Amino acid sequence: MLVERLAVIGVGLIGGSFALALKQAGACAHVVGAGRNRANLELAQSRGIIDSIAADAVAAAHGADLVLVAAPVAQFPRIFHAIAAVLGPKAVVTDGGSTKRDVVAAAREALGKKVAQFVPAHPIAGAEKSGAAAASAELFRGRRVVLTPIPENRDFSLKKVAEAWSVCGARVSRMDAQEHDALLAAVSHLPHLLAFALVHEIAGRQNAAQLFSYAAGGFRDFTRIASSHPEMWRDICVANRDRLLLEVKSFSQKLEAMQALLEAADGARLEKLFAEARAARDEWIHSS
Amino acid sequence: MLVERLAVIGVGLIGGSFALALKQAGACAHVVGAGRNRANLELAQSRGIIDSIAADAVAAAHGADLVLVAAPVAQFPRIFHAIAAVLGPKAVVTDGGSTKRDVVAAAREALGKKVAQFVPAHPIAGAEKSGAAAASAELFRGRRVVLTPIPENRDFSLKKVAEAWSVCGARVSRMDAQEHDALLAAVSHLPHLLAFALVHEIAGRQNAAQLFSYAAGGFRDFTRIASSHPEMWRDICVANRDRLLLEVKSFSQKLEAMQALLEAADGARLEKLFAEARAARDEWIHSS
Repeated sequence: MLVERLAVIGVGLIGGSFALALKQAGACAHVVGAGRNRANLELAQSRGIIDSIAADAVAAAHGADLVLVAAPVAQFPRIFHAIAAVLGPKAVVTDGGSTKRDVVAAAREALGKKVAQFVPAHPIAGAEKSGAAAASAELFRGRRVVLTPIPENRDFSLKKVAEAWSVCGARVSRMDAQEHDALLAAVSHLPHLLAFALVHEIAGRQNAAQLFSYAAGGFRDFTRIASSHPEMWRDICVANRDRLLLEVKSFSQKLEAMQALLEAADGARLEKLFAEARAARDEWIHSS
Repeated sequence: MLVERLAVIGVGLIGGSFALALKQAGACAHVVGAGRNRANLELAQSRGIIDSIAADAVAAAHGADLVLVAAPVAQFPRIFHAIAAVLGPKAVVTDGGSTKRDVVAAAREALGKKVAQFVPAHPIAGAEKSGAAAASAELFRGRRVVLTPIPENRDFSLKKVAEAWSVCGARVSRMDAQEHDALLAAVSHLPHLLAFALVHEIAGRQNAAQLFSYAAGGFRDFTRIASSHPEMWRDICVANRDRLLLEVKSFSQKLEAMQALLEAADGARLEKLFAEARAARDEWIHSS
Protein backbone atom coordinates (compact mmCIF):
# COMPACT_ATOMS: atom_id res chain seq x y z
CA MET A 1 0.00 0.00 0.00
CA LEU A 2 1.52 3.33 -1.09
CA VAL A 3 -0.15 5.26 1.73
CA GLU A 4 -1.35 3.72 5.00
CA ARG A 5 -2.78 6.82 6.59
CA LEU A 6 -3.30 9.94 4.52
CA ALA A 7 -3.97 13.19 6.36
CA VAL A 8 -5.68 15.84 4.25
CA ILE A 9 -5.60 19.29 5.81
CA GLY A 10 -8.13 21.32 3.89
CA VAL A 11 -10.60 18.93 2.23
CA GLY A 12 -11.58 21.16 -0.67
CA LEU A 13 -11.43 20.66 -4.41
CA ILE A 14 -7.72 19.74 -4.41
CA GLY A 15 -7.48 17.86 -1.12
CA GLY A 16 -10.72 15.99 -1.69
CA SER A 17 -9.85 15.02 -5.26
CA PHE A 18 -6.39 13.76 -4.17
CA ALA A 19 -7.96 11.57 -1.49
CA LEU A 20 -10.64 10.23 -3.85
CA ALA A 21 -8.13 9.42 -6.57
CA LEU A 22 -5.80 7.54 -4.20
CA LYS A 23 -8.68 5.61 -2.67
CA GLN A 24 -10.18 4.65 -6.01
CA ALA A 25 -6.75 3.42 -7.13
CA GLY A 26 -6.51 1.29 -3.99
CA ALA A 27 -3.35 3.16 -3.04
CA CYS A 28 -4.50 4.41 0.34
CA ALA A 29 -5.86 2.53 3.38
CA HIS A 30 -7.31 5.34 5.46
CA VAL A 31 -7.92 9.06 4.96
CA VAL A 32 -8.33 11.45 7.85
CA GLY A 33 -9.46 14.99 7.15
CA ALA A 34 -9.10 18.24 9.03
CA GLY A 35 -10.32 21.72 8.21
CA ARG A 36 -12.03 24.87 9.37
CA ASN A 37 -15.47 24.06 8.04
CA ARG A 38 -17.22 21.25 9.93
CA ALA A 39 -20.09 20.96 7.46
CA ASN A 40 -17.62 20.57 4.60
CA LEU A 41 -15.79 17.79 6.49
CA GLU A 42 -19.06 15.98 7.14
CA LEU A 43 -19.95 16.25 3.48
CA ALA A 44 -16.51 14.85 2.62
CA GLN A 45 -17.08 11.92 4.96
CA SER A 46 -20.56 11.23 3.58
CA ARG A 47 -19.15 11.28 0.03
CA GLY A 48 -16.48 8.74 1.04
CA ILE A 49 -13.67 11.20 0.44
CA ILE A 50 -12.38 10.85 4.01
CA ASP A 51 -12.85 7.99 6.45
CA SER A 52 -12.59 10.02 9.63
CA ILE A 53 -12.62 13.62 10.82
CA ALA A 54 -9.79 14.87 13.01
CA ALA A 55 -10.27 17.66 15.55
CA ASP A 56 -7.47 19.67 14.01
CA ALA A 57 -4.36 19.51 11.82
CA VAL A 58 -2.26 18.08 14.66
CA ALA A 59 -4.65 15.21 15.28
CA ALA A 60 -4.84 14.51 11.55
CA ALA A 61 -1.07 14.45 11.05
CA HIS A 62 -0.46 12.25 14.09
CA GLY A 63 0.50 8.83 12.78
CA ALA A 64 0.03 9.75 9.12
CA ASP A 65 2.63 8.55 6.62
CA LEU A 66 1.50 11.13 4.06
CA VAL A 67 0.17 14.58 4.86
CA LEU A 68 -1.35 16.79 2.14
CA VAL A 69 -1.69 20.44 3.08
CA ALA A 70 -4.37 21.82 0.77
CA ALA A 71 -5.63 24.96 2.51
CA PRO A 72 -5.29 28.50 1.10
CA VAL A 73 -1.55 29.25 1.21
CA ALA A 74 -1.73 31.97 3.87
CA GLN A 75 -2.66 29.27 6.40
CA PHE A 76 0.42 27.17 5.67
CA PRO A 77 2.73 28.74 8.33
CA ARG A 78 0.18 28.02 11.07
CA ILE A 79 -0.43 24.48 9.82
CA PHE A 80 3.29 23.66 9.46
CA HIS A 81 3.94 24.97 12.99
CA ALA A 82 1.08 22.89 14.34
CA ILE A 83 2.09 19.59 12.75
CA ALA A 84 5.89 19.86 13.14
CA ALA A 85 6.06 18.09 16.50
CA VAL A 86 3.85 15.13 15.57
CA LEU A 87 5.50 14.21 12.26
CA GLY A 88 7.06 10.78 12.55
CA PRO A 89 10.49 10.13 10.99
CA LYS A 90 8.96 8.33 8.00
CA ALA A 91 6.10 10.75 7.46
CA VAL A 92 6.16 12.70 4.21
CA VAL A 93 4.41 16.03 3.73
CA THR A 94 3.31 17.55 0.45
CA ASP A 95 0.95 20.34 -0.50
CA GLY A 96 -1.37 21.66 -3.19
CA GLY A 97 -0.47 25.34 -3.00
CA SER A 98 -0.46 27.43 -6.18
CA THR A 99 2.63 29.37 -5.10
CA LYS A 100 5.84 27.73 -4.06
CA ARG A 101 8.46 30.21 -2.79
CA ASP A 102 6.32 31.30 0.15
CA VAL A 103 5.32 27.72 0.92
CA VAL A 104 8.94 26.54 0.97
CA ALA A 105 9.93 29.47 3.19
CA ALA A 106 7.08 28.74 5.58
CA ALA A 107 7.97 25.04 5.75
CA ARG A 108 11.63 25.81 6.32
CA GLU A 109 10.79 28.20 9.12
CA ALA A 110 8.25 25.95 10.87
CA LEU A 111 9.51 22.43 10.31
CA GLY A 112 13.19 22.92 11.17
CA LYS A 113 15.15 19.78 10.30
CA LYS A 114 11.95 18.01 9.34
CA VAL A 115 11.72 20.27 6.29
CA ALA A 116 13.57 17.41 4.52
CA GLN A 117 10.28 15.51 4.78
CA PHE A 118 8.37 18.21 2.89
CA VAL A 119 8.11 17.88 -0.90
CA PRO A 120 6.38 20.97 -2.32
CA ALA A 121 3.88 20.32 -5.11
CA HIS A 122 1.46 22.27 -7.26
CA PRO A 123 -1.26 20.38 -9.09
CA ILE A 124 -2.16 22.62 -12.05
CA ALA A 125 -5.76 21.58 -12.12
CA GLY A 126 -7.99 24.14 -10.61
CA ALA A 127 -11.56 24.94 -11.31
CA GLU A 128 -13.82 27.78 -10.39
CA LYS A 129 -15.61 25.35 -8.09
CA SER A 130 -14.44 24.77 -4.55
CA GLY A 131 -15.12 22.62 -1.48
CA ALA A 132 -15.48 18.86 -0.97
CA ALA A 133 -18.70 18.98 -3.02
CA ALA A 134 -16.62 19.71 -6.13
CA ALA A 135 -13.97 17.02 -5.51
CA SER A 136 -13.52 14.37 -8.20
CA ALA A 137 -11.20 11.38 -8.55
CA GLU A 138 -10.65 12.47 -12.17
CA LEU A 139 -9.54 16.06 -11.48
CA PHE A 140 -5.83 15.39 -11.94
CA ARG A 141 -6.05 12.95 -14.86
CA GLY A 142 -3.70 14.14 -17.59
CA ARG A 143 -2.96 17.36 -15.68
CA ARG A 144 0.44 18.61 -14.71
CA VAL A 145 1.71 18.45 -11.14
CA VAL A 146 4.89 20.42 -10.59
CA LEU A 147 7.18 19.36 -7.75
CA THR A 148 9.64 21.98 -6.55
CA PRO A 149 11.96 19.85 -4.41
CA ILE A 150 14.36 21.39 -1.91
CA PRO A 151 17.98 20.24 -1.49
CA GLU A 152 17.17 18.52 1.82
CA ASN A 153 14.57 16.15 0.29
CA ARG A 154 15.56 12.52 0.31
CA ASP A 155 14.79 10.12 -2.53
CA PHE A 156 12.32 8.21 -0.40
CA SER A 157 10.16 11.29 0.16
CA LEU A 158 10.41 12.54 -3.40
CA LYS A 159 9.48 9.14 -4.76
CA LYS A 160 6.49 8.76 -2.48
CA VAL A 161 5.06 12.14 -3.44
CA ALA A 162 5.73 11.69 -7.17
CA GLU A 163 4.10 8.27 -7.04
CA ALA A 164 1.04 9.53 -5.21
CA TRP A 165 0.41 12.23 -7.83
CA SER A 166 1.10 9.73 -10.62
CA VAL A 167 -1.50 7.40 -9.14
CA CYS A 168 -3.95 10.31 -9.44
CA GLY A 169 -3.26 10.27 -13.18
CA ALA A 170 -1.14 13.43 -13.20
CA ARG A 171 1.93 14.17 -15.32
CA VAL A 172 4.59 14.93 -12.72
CA SER A 173 7.48 17.27 -13.49
CA ARG A 174 10.08 19.20 -11.48
CA MET A 175 11.45 22.71 -11.42
CA ASP A 176 12.64 25.14 -8.78
CA ALA A 177 10.23 27.30 -6.83
CA GLN A 178 11.49 30.55 -8.39
CA GLU A 179 10.85 29.33 -11.91
CA HIS A 180 7.47 27.92 -10.92
CA ASP A 181 6.25 31.18 -9.45
CA ALA A 182 7.42 33.15 -12.48
CA LEU A 183 5.69 30.83 -14.95
CA LEU A 184 2.44 30.62 -13.03
CA ALA A 185 2.27 34.37 -12.53
CA ALA A 186 2.06 34.72 -16.32
CA VAL A 187 -0.27 31.92 -17.34
CA SER A 188 -2.48 31.61 -14.26
CA HIS A 189 -2.27 34.39 -11.69
CA LEU A 190 -2.46 37.28 -14.16
CA PRO A 191 -5.45 35.89 -16.09
CA HIS A 192 -7.30 35.45 -12.79
CA LEU A 193 -6.55 39.04 -11.83
CA LEU A 194 -7.74 40.29 -15.24
CA ALA A 195 -10.96 38.31 -15.08
CA PHE A 196 -11.74 39.57 -11.57
CA ALA A 197 -10.94 43.12 -12.77
CA LEU A 198 -13.28 42.99 -15.77
CA VAL A 199 -16.23 41.56 -13.84
CA HIS A 200 -15.71 43.99 -10.96
CA GLU A 201 -15.53 46.92 -13.36
CA ILE A 202 -18.79 45.96 -15.06
CA ALA A 203 -20.59 44.98 -11.85
CA GLY A 204 -19.89 48.40 -10.37
CA ARG A 205 -21.73 50.33 -13.06
CA GLN A 206 -25.23 51.72 -12.85
CA ASN A 207 -26.32 49.71 -15.88
CA ALA A 208 -24.60 46.50 -14.72
CA ALA A 209 -27.74 44.38 -15.10
CA GLN A 210 -28.23 45.54 -18.68
CA LEU A 211 -24.55 44.99 -19.49
CA PHE A 212 -24.61 41.45 -18.14
CA SER A 213 -27.80 40.73 -20.07
CA TYR A 214 -25.96 41.35 -23.36
CA ALA A 215 -22.91 39.32 -22.37
CA ALA A 216 -22.59 36.10 -24.33
CA GLY A 217 -20.46 32.98 -24.51
CA GLY A 218 -17.20 34.81 -25.03
CA PHE A 219 -17.70 36.82 -21.85
CA ARG A 220 -18.82 33.74 -19.94
CA ASP A 221 -15.66 31.80 -20.78
CA PHE A 222 -13.34 34.79 -20.40
CA THR A 223 -14.66 35.41 -16.90
CA ARG A 224 -15.10 31.81 -15.74
CA ILE A 225 -12.06 32.11 -13.48
CA ALA A 226 -13.61 35.20 -11.83
CA SER A 227 -15.87 32.70 -10.06
CA SER A 228 -12.81 31.27 -8.30
CA HIS A 229 -12.37 31.15 -4.53
CA PRO A 230 -11.69 34.72 -3.28
CA GLU A 231 -9.62 33.74 -0.22
CA MET A 232 -7.49 31.28 -2.15
CA TRP A 233 -6.80 33.90 -4.81
CA ARG A 234 -6.13 36.62 -2.26
CA ASP A 235 -3.41 34.39 -0.80
CA ILE A 236 -1.92 33.50 -4.17
CA CYS A 237 -1.83 37.13 -5.30
CA VAL A 238 -0.27 38.35 -2.07
CA ALA A 239 2.26 35.51 -1.88
CA ASN A 240 3.39 35.92 -5.48
CA ARG A 241 2.89 39.67 -5.74
CA ASP A 242 6.40 40.55 -6.92
CA ARG A 243 6.12 38.27 -9.95
CA LEU A 244 2.47 39.13 -10.49
CA LEU A 245 3.27 42.85 -10.48
CA LEU A 246 5.87 42.26 -13.19
CA GLU A 247 3.19 40.51 -15.24
CA VAL A 248 0.66 43.28 -14.66
CA LYS A 249 3.28 45.73 -15.89
CA SER A 250 4.06 43.75 -19.06
CA PHE A 251 0.39 43.31 -19.78
CA SER A 252 -0.36 47.00 -19.25
CA GLN A 253 2.40 47.90 -21.69
CA LYS A 254 0.91 45.56 -24.28
CA LEU A 255 -2.52 47.07 -23.70
CA GLU A 256 -1.11 50.59 -24.04
CA ALA A 257 0.46 49.61 -27.35
CA MET A 258 -2.90 48.32 -28.55
CA GLN A 259 -4.59 51.48 -27.28
CA ALA A 260 -2.20 53.49 -29.46
CA LEU A 261 -3.11 51.35 -32.49
CA LEU A 262 -6.80 51.97 -31.79
CA GLU A 263 -6.25 55.71 -31.44
CA ALA A 264 -4.45 55.71 -34.77
CA ALA A 265 -7.15 53.45 -36.28
CA ASP A 266 -4.24 51.29 -37.44
CA GLY A 267 -6.24 48.34 -38.67
CA ALA A 268 -3.33 46.65 -40.41
CA ARG A 269 -1.22 46.39 -37.24
CA LEU A 270 -4.20 45.39 -35.12
CA GLU A 271 -5.04 42.61 -37.54
CA LYS A 272 -1.41 41.44 -37.55
CA LEU A 273 -1.38 41.33 -33.75
CA PHE A 274 -4.72 39.47 -33.62
CA ALA A 275 -3.54 37.00 -36.25
CA GLU A 276 -0.28 36.32 -34.39
CA ALA A 277 -2.18 35.79 -31.14
CA ARG A 278 -4.65 33.44 -32.80
CA ALA A 279 -1.90 31.46 -34.49
CA ALA A 280 -0.01 31.07 -31.20
CA ARG A 281 -3.11 29.99 -29.31
CA ASP A 282 -4.26 27.58 -32.01
CA GLU A 283 -0.80 25.99 -32.11
CA TRP A 284 -0.90 25.56 -28.34
CA ILE A 285 -4.42 24.08 -28.39
CA HIS A 286 -3.55 21.61 -31.16
CA SER A 287 -0.33 20.50 -29.49
CA SER A 288 -1.79 20.10 -26.00
CA MET B 1 -43.08 31.34 -47.27
CA LEU B 2 -41.33 34.03 -45.19
CA VAL B 3 -38.44 34.36 -47.63
CA GLU B 4 -38.59 33.40 -51.31
CA ARG B 5 -35.03 34.19 -52.27
CA LEU B 6 -32.44 34.82 -49.55
CA ALA B 7 -29.15 36.38 -50.58
CA VAL B 8 -26.32 35.81 -48.12
CA ILE B 9 -23.31 38.00 -48.73
CA GLY B 10 -20.50 36.47 -46.71
CA VAL B 11 -21.35 32.81 -46.07
CA GLY B 12 -19.39 32.41 -42.86
CA LEU B 13 -20.40 31.34 -39.37
CA ILE B 14 -23.18 33.93 -39.11
CA GLY B 15 -24.41 34.01 -42.69
CA GLY B 16 -24.25 30.24 -43.06
CA SER B 17 -26.03 29.59 -39.78
CA PHE B 18 -28.81 32.04 -40.66
CA ALA B 19 -29.37 30.31 -44.01
CA LEU B 20 -29.32 26.84 -42.44
CA ALA B 21 -31.77 27.81 -39.70
CA LEU B 22 -34.26 29.36 -42.15
CA LYS B 23 -34.05 26.39 -44.49
CA GLN B 24 -34.49 23.83 -41.73
CA ALA B 25 -37.54 25.74 -40.51
CA GLY B 26 -39.00 25.66 -44.02
CA ALA B 27 -39.06 29.45 -44.02
CA CYS B 28 -36.93 29.97 -47.11
CA ALA B 29 -37.31 28.65 -50.67
CA HIS B 30 -33.90 29.41 -52.15
CA VAL B 31 -30.57 30.68 -50.80
CA VAL B 32 -27.98 32.29 -53.03
CA GLY B 33 -24.54 32.97 -51.61
CA ALA B 34 -21.79 35.40 -52.55
CA GLY B 35 -18.38 35.95 -51.05
CA ARG B 36 -14.67 36.43 -51.58
CA ASN B 37 -13.63 32.84 -51.00
CA ARG B 38 -14.73 30.46 -53.75
CA ALA B 39 -13.71 27.33 -51.83
CA ASN B 40 -15.80 28.45 -48.87
CA LEU B 41 -18.83 29.02 -51.13
CA GLU B 42 -18.44 25.57 -52.66
CA LEU B 43 -18.24 24.04 -49.22
CA ALA B 44 -21.39 25.97 -48.26
CA GLN B 45 -23.17 24.59 -51.32
CA SER B 46 -22.02 21.04 -50.65
CA ARG B 47 -23.24 21.33 -47.04
CA GLY B 48 -26.66 22.48 -48.30
CA ILE B 49 -26.27 25.91 -46.73
CA ILE B 50 -26.76 27.68 -50.05
CA ASP B 51 -28.52 26.46 -53.19
CA SER B 52 -26.54 28.49 -55.68
CA ILE B 53 -23.40 30.60 -55.90
CA ALA B 54 -23.61 34.12 -57.31
CA ALA B 55 -20.71 35.76 -59.09
CA ASP B 56 -20.79 38.72 -56.73
CA ALA B 57 -22.94 40.64 -54.26
CA VAL B 58 -24.88 42.37 -57.05
CA ALA B 59 -25.84 39.09 -58.69
CA ALA B 60 -26.83 37.64 -55.33
CA ALA B 61 -29.02 40.59 -54.33
CA HIS B 62 -30.75 40.72 -57.72
CA GLY B 63 -34.29 39.45 -57.21
CA ALA B 64 -33.79 38.64 -53.54
CA ASP B 65 -36.57 39.53 -51.11
CA LEU B 66 -34.18 39.29 -48.15
CA VAL B 67 -30.49 40.14 -48.23
CA LEU B 68 -28.22 39.32 -45.28
CA VAL B 69 -24.88 41.14 -45.29
CA ALA B 70 -22.61 39.04 -43.10
CA ALA B 71 -19.10 40.02 -44.13
CA PRO B 72 -16.55 41.77 -41.85
CA VAL B 73 -17.98 45.26 -41.26
CA ALA B 74 -15.25 47.15 -43.14
CA GLN B 75 -16.63 45.65 -46.36
CA PHE B 76 -20.14 46.93 -45.78
CA PRO B 77 -19.74 50.29 -47.61
CA ARG B 78 -18.55 48.52 -50.75
CA ILE B 79 -21.32 45.91 -50.54
CA PHE B 80 -24.08 48.47 -49.91
CA HIS B 81 -22.88 50.54 -52.86
CA ALA B 82 -22.82 47.46 -55.06
CA ILE B 83 -26.31 46.22 -54.25
CA ALA B 84 -28.11 49.59 -54.01
CA ALA B 85 -29.18 49.69 -57.66
CA VAL B 86 -30.56 46.14 -57.83
CA LEU B 87 -32.67 46.19 -54.66
CA GLY B 88 -36.33 45.82 -55.62
CA PRO B 89 -38.98 47.91 -53.84
CA LYS B 90 -40.04 44.99 -51.62
CA ALA B 91 -36.53 43.74 -50.86
CA VAL B 92 -35.42 43.96 -47.26
CA VAL B 93 -31.78 44.09 -46.20
CA THR B 94 -30.39 43.12 -42.81
CA ASP B 95 -26.92 42.36 -41.52
CA GLY B 96 -24.93 40.43 -38.94
CA GLY B 97 -22.37 43.08 -38.06
CA SER B 98 -21.11 43.36 -34.47
CA THR B 99 -21.05 47.17 -34.59
CA LYS B 100 -24.02 49.25 -35.58
CA ARG B 101 -23.23 52.99 -35.80
CA ASP B 102 -20.75 52.50 -38.62
CA VAL B 103 -23.04 50.06 -40.41
CA VAL B 104 -25.99 52.46 -40.25
CA ALA B 105 -23.80 55.31 -41.50
CA ALA B 106 -22.53 53.19 -44.38
CA ALA B 107 -26.04 52.09 -45.35
CA ARG B 108 -27.34 55.65 -45.21
CA GLU B 109 -24.51 56.87 -47.40
CA ALA B 110 -24.70 54.07 -49.97
CA LEU B 111 -28.40 53.19 -50.17
CA GLY B 112 -29.89 56.67 -50.36
CA LYS B 113 -33.68 56.49 -50.07
CA LYS B 114 -33.51 52.70 -50.03
CA VAL B 115 -31.96 52.90 -46.57
CA ALA B 116 -35.57 52.52 -45.36
CA GLN B 117 -35.30 48.92 -46.54
CA PHE B 118 -32.29 48.23 -44.31
CA VAL B 119 -32.95 46.92 -40.79
CA PRO B 120 -29.64 46.69 -38.86
CA ALA B 121 -29.19 43.61 -36.70
CA HIS B 122 -26.55 42.06 -34.49
CA PRO B 123 -26.87 38.40 -33.58
CA ILE B 124 -24.94 38.06 -30.30
CA ALA B 125 -23.82 34.55 -30.99
CA GLY B 126 -20.29 34.39 -32.11
CA ALA B 127 -17.75 31.68 -31.70
CA GLU B 128 -14.04 31.49 -32.19
CA LYS B 129 -14.74 29.36 -35.25
CA SER B 130 -15.37 30.89 -38.63
CA GLY B 131 -16.33 30.01 -42.18
CA ALA B 132 -19.15 27.94 -43.67
CA ALA B 133 -17.58 24.84 -42.12
CA ALA B 134 -18.57 26.14 -38.67
CA ALA B 135 -22.15 27.11 -39.58
CA SER B 136 -24.96 25.48 -37.62
CA ALA B 137 -28.74 25.77 -37.72
CA GLU B 138 -28.66 25.87 -33.91
CA LEU B 139 -26.22 28.78 -33.51
CA PHE B 140 -28.87 31.39 -32.73
CA ARG B 141 -31.18 29.24 -30.59
CA GLY B 142 -31.87 31.08 -27.34
CA ARG B 143 -29.36 33.81 -28.24
CA ARG B 144 -30.07 37.51 -28.41
CA VAL B 145 -30.39 39.35 -31.70
CA VAL B 146 -30.42 43.12 -31.29
CA LEU B 147 -32.15 45.18 -33.96
CA THR B 148 -31.17 48.83 -34.12
CA PRO B 149 -33.91 50.20 -36.39
CA ILE B 150 -33.62 53.58 -38.07
CA PRO B 151 -36.50 56.08 -38.28
CA GLU B 152 -37.01 55.38 -41.98
CA ASN B 153 -37.74 51.66 -41.48
CA ARG B 154 -41.30 50.62 -42.28
CA ASP B 155 -43.24 48.05 -40.28
CA PHE B 156 -43.17 45.59 -43.15
CA SER B 157 -39.34 45.52 -43.20
CA LEU B 158 -38.97 45.45 -39.43
CA LYS B 159 -41.44 42.62 -39.12
CA LYS B 160 -39.78 40.54 -41.81
CA VAL B 161 -36.34 40.84 -40.23
CA ALA B 162 -37.61 40.23 -36.69
CA GLU B 163 -39.52 37.18 -37.88
CA ALA B 164 -36.53 35.76 -39.74
CA TRP B 165 -34.34 35.95 -36.65
CA SER B 166 -37.15 34.54 -34.50
CA VAL B 167 -37.45 31.59 -36.86
CA CYS B 168 -33.74 30.98 -36.17
CA GLY B 169 -34.69 30.59 -32.49
CA ALA B 170 -33.24 33.94 -31.39
CA ARG B 171 -34.62 36.31 -28.75
CA VAL B 172 -35.09 39.55 -30.68
CA SER B 173 -34.85 42.93 -28.95
CA ARG B 174 -34.40 46.54 -30.04
CA MET B 175 -32.26 49.48 -29.02
CA ASP B 176 -30.55 52.34 -30.77
CA ALA B 177 -27.17 51.95 -32.42
CA GLN B 178 -25.40 54.25 -29.93
CA GLU B 179 -26.53 52.22 -26.95
CA HIS B 180 -25.72 48.96 -28.73
CA ASP B 181 -22.15 49.99 -29.48
CA ALA B 182 -21.58 51.19 -25.91
CA LEU B 183 -22.89 47.97 -24.36
CA LEU B 184 -21.01 45.67 -26.69
CA ALA B 185 -17.75 47.57 -26.25
CA ALA B 186 -17.87 46.63 -22.56
CA VAL B 187 -19.05 43.02 -22.63
CA SER B 188 -17.65 41.82 -25.94
CA HIS B 189 -15.13 44.04 -27.69
CA LEU B 190 -12.99 44.76 -24.61
CA PRO B 191 -12.75 41.09 -23.52
CA HIS B 192 -11.64 40.17 -27.03
CA LEU B 193 -8.96 42.86 -26.97
CA LEU B 194 -7.74 41.67 -23.54
CA ALA B 195 -7.58 38.05 -24.63
CA PHE B 196 -5.64 38.93 -27.79
CA ALA B 197 -3.32 41.09 -25.65
CA LEU B 198 -2.55 38.34 -23.14
CA VAL B 199 -1.84 35.68 -25.73
CA HIS B 200 0.27 38.06 -27.81
CA GLU B 201 2.26 39.10 -24.75
CA ILE B 202 3.04 35.51 -23.82
CA ALA B 203 3.64 34.33 -27.38
CA GLY B 204 6.29 37.01 -27.85
CA ARG B 205 8.53 35.79 -25.04
CA GLN B 206 11.64 33.69 -25.40
CA ASN B 207 10.17 30.99 -23.12
CA ALA B 208 6.74 31.07 -24.81
CA ALA B 209 6.66 27.32 -25.41
CA GLN B 210 7.41 26.61 -21.74
CA LEU B 211 4.82 29.15 -20.60
CA PHE B 212 2.11 27.64 -22.78
CA SER B 213 3.02 24.16 -21.55
CA TYR B 214 2.06 25.18 -18.00
CA ALA B 215 -1.16 26.91 -19.02
CA ALA B 216 -4.27 25.05 -17.90
CA GLY B 217 -8.03 25.16 -18.24
CA GLY B 218 -8.38 28.67 -16.82
CA PHE B 219 -6.02 30.06 -19.43
CA ARG B 220 -7.68 28.05 -22.20
CA ASP B 221 -11.14 29.45 -21.45
CA PHE B 222 -9.90 32.98 -20.74
CA THR B 223 -8.18 33.07 -24.13
CA ARG B 224 -10.74 31.17 -26.20
CA ILE B 225 -11.85 34.40 -27.88
CA ALA B 226 -8.24 35.09 -28.89
CA SER B 227 -8.81 32.40 -31.52
CA SER B 228 -11.43 34.63 -33.15
CA HIS B 229 -11.27 35.86 -36.73
CA PRO B 230 -8.52 38.55 -36.95
CA GLU B 231 -10.03 40.51 -39.84
CA MET B 232 -13.49 40.55 -38.30
CA TRP B 233 -12.10 41.79 -34.99
CA ARG B 234 -9.88 44.35 -36.68
CA ASP B 235 -12.99 45.83 -38.29
CA ILE B 236 -15.01 45.76 -35.06
CA CYS B 237 -12.23 47.40 -33.06
CA VAL B 238 -11.63 50.11 -35.63
CA ALA B 239 -15.34 50.81 -36.20
CA ASN B 240 -16.12 51.05 -32.48
CA ARG B 241 -12.81 52.47 -31.36
CA ASP B 242 -14.17 55.52 -29.53
CA ARG B 243 -16.30 53.37 -27.22
CA LEU B 244 -13.67 50.67 -27.01
CA LEU B 245 -11.03 53.22 -25.97
CA LEU B 246 -13.32 54.38 -23.16
CA GLU B 247 -13.58 50.77 -22.00
CA VAL B 248 -9.82 50.24 -22.19
CA LYS B 249 -9.41 53.35 -20.04
CA SER B 250 -11.90 52.19 -17.40
CA PHE B 251 -10.35 48.76 -17.32
CA SER B 252 -6.83 50.16 -17.02
CA GLN B 253 -7.92 52.28 -14.06
CA LYS B 254 -9.40 49.21 -12.36
CA LEU B 255 -6.18 47.29 -13.02
CA GLU B 256 -4.11 50.16 -11.62
CA ALA B 257 -6.21 50.13 -8.46
CA MET B 258 -5.60 46.41 -8.09
CA GLN B 259 -1.90 46.94 -8.76
CA ALA B 260 -1.84 49.39 -5.84
CA LEU B 261 -3.52 46.80 -3.59
CA LEU B 262 -0.89 44.24 -4.61
CA GLU B 263 1.94 46.68 -3.96
CA ALA B 264 0.51 47.34 -0.50
CA ALA B 265 -0.07 43.58 0.01
CA ASP B 266 -3.61 44.58 0.97
CA GLY B 267 -5.12 41.11 1.14
CA ALA B 268 -8.35 42.23 2.76
CA ARG B 269 -9.30 44.62 -0.04
CA LEU B 270 -8.18 42.20 -2.73
CA GLU B 271 -10.35 39.49 -1.22
CA LYS B 272 -13.31 41.88 -1.02
CA LEU B 273 -12.91 42.80 -4.67
CA PHE B 274 -12.58 39.14 -5.72
CA ALA B 275 -15.63 38.20 -3.66
CA GLU B 276 -17.71 41.00 -5.18
CA ALA B 277 -16.68 39.97 -8.67
CA ARG B 278 -17.47 36.33 -8.00
CA ALA B 279 -20.86 37.17 -6.52
CA ALA B 280 -21.77 39.35 -9.49
CA ARG B 281 -20.69 36.71 -11.99
CA ASP B 282 -22.42 33.86 -10.18
CA GLU B 283 -25.64 35.87 -10.01
CA TRP B 284 -25.42 36.51 -13.74
CA ILE B 285 -24.71 32.84 -14.54
CA HIS B 286 -27.59 31.62 -12.39
CA SER B 287 -30.05 34.11 -13.83
CA SER B 288 -29.10 33.56 -17.46
